[in-house]
Amino acid sequence: VPRIVDHEQRRARFAEAAAEVIATSGVEGLTMRDVARRAGSSTGMLTHYFADRDELLLATFLHAAAAAGHRIERSLQRGLDPLDALVEGALPLDAQRRRAWQVWLAFWGSSIGRSDLAAEQRRIQRAFHRRVQAAVEAARTSGRFHPDTDVEATTAAITSLIDGLALQVTFDPRAWPAARQRGVLNAALAALGGGGRRVD
Amino acid sequence: VPRIVDHEQRRARFAEAAAEVIATSGVEGLTMRDVARRAGSSTGMLTHYFADRDELLLATFLHAAAAAGHRIERSLQRGLDPLDALVEGALPLDAQRRRAWQVWLAFWGSSIGRSDLAAEQRRIQRAFHRRVQAAVEAARTSGRFHPDTDVEATTAAITSLIDGLALQVTFDPRAWPAARQRGVLNAALAALGGGGRRVD
Repeated sequence: VPRIVDHEQRRARFAEAAAEVIATSGVEGLTMRDVARRAGSSTGMLTHYFADRDELLLATFLHAAAAAGHRIERSLQRGLDPLDALVEGALPLDAQRRRAWQVWLAFWGSSIGRSDLAAEQRRIQRAFHRRVQAAVEAARTSGRFHPDTDVEATTAAITSLIDGLALQVTFDPRAWPAARQRGVLNAALAALGGGGRRVD
Repeated sequence: VPRIVDHEQRRARFAEAAAEVIATSGVEGLTMRDVARRAGSSTGMLTHYFADRDELLLATFLHAAAAAGHRIERSLQRGLDPLDALVEGALPLDAQRRRAWQVWLAFWGSSIGRSDLAAEQRRIQRAFHRRVQAAVEAARTSGRFHPDTDVEATTAAITSLIDGLALQVTFDPRAWPAARQRGVLNAALAALGGGGRRVD
């Protein structure tokens, strides 16, 4: 149904324009007018899709989260190990993924003191947690992780590692080329999943 | 010199009032008027200390960072292992430390697209990194961590773990009582520092 495709494409284009505005002018510089202009559209058209700035900010956040989900899915379909697919899909390894982290950090900051936005973040956070947990369980099954791995604690640690590393990279990208990010993450994954094996 | 003490105390009081405003109304609700009112003062007095909202936001961020530094220092002076002092001082284990994380997340969000604020975050981030590195080196010396521990990679991983776990806790505090935070962090620390020991 072409009209639905058009609608979704236009929403995505506005969300990407909003991400660019956030990255260059900050979240406080996010105005309906600037986003419309950056998308080559009009404020009237933009408000047809998003009633206000809050709705646009939320959509921009969810769009970046969905894009990360698609990156991870594509890596899984290419046969990548689920843990590696997470690392490749989630870490800020290139400009596109750094932009996603800028959007997420901007959204998180805006969610402090805003229970409606915080609830959306909690929902996305739990979905990411489930994805990490599935990867940890797969690693235990495949033998990459020791069978005695504590799935719950390891899932929380890996989720924390990815988010915390991305935070460091976002504010210091020149210190963090992709190879250094992968090196730190993979060494930590090996320690978290392999420690148990060496005990017995 | 009492006047300097007064000055510092009043700055601290304004920074704490600003943290409360951020936690309840969000960073976009941070106005000079509301912060002055919450501190039981006047906008005129507040602008005597902070020229504008940006200056106040930065001071609020730095105040929370300094308070975390003092918590860690006090724990070290009480004889806590440096890694444990970091965990106790930095994780959002109680209401006061959860408030600090709300301030940091709000500030990080505001720093996206703002090179002046991002530079301050980078400076604080590097200082925290040095503190973690000193704790990793101490753990290697004391035998808590294996002598072959890769200090640089382990420092980056522990910094990431603390920041990433705090992020999860901030948006889902009921799911993260202090005991669960400590459990996840301590298990991860044991894996990161102990894996090497079991190889030989």
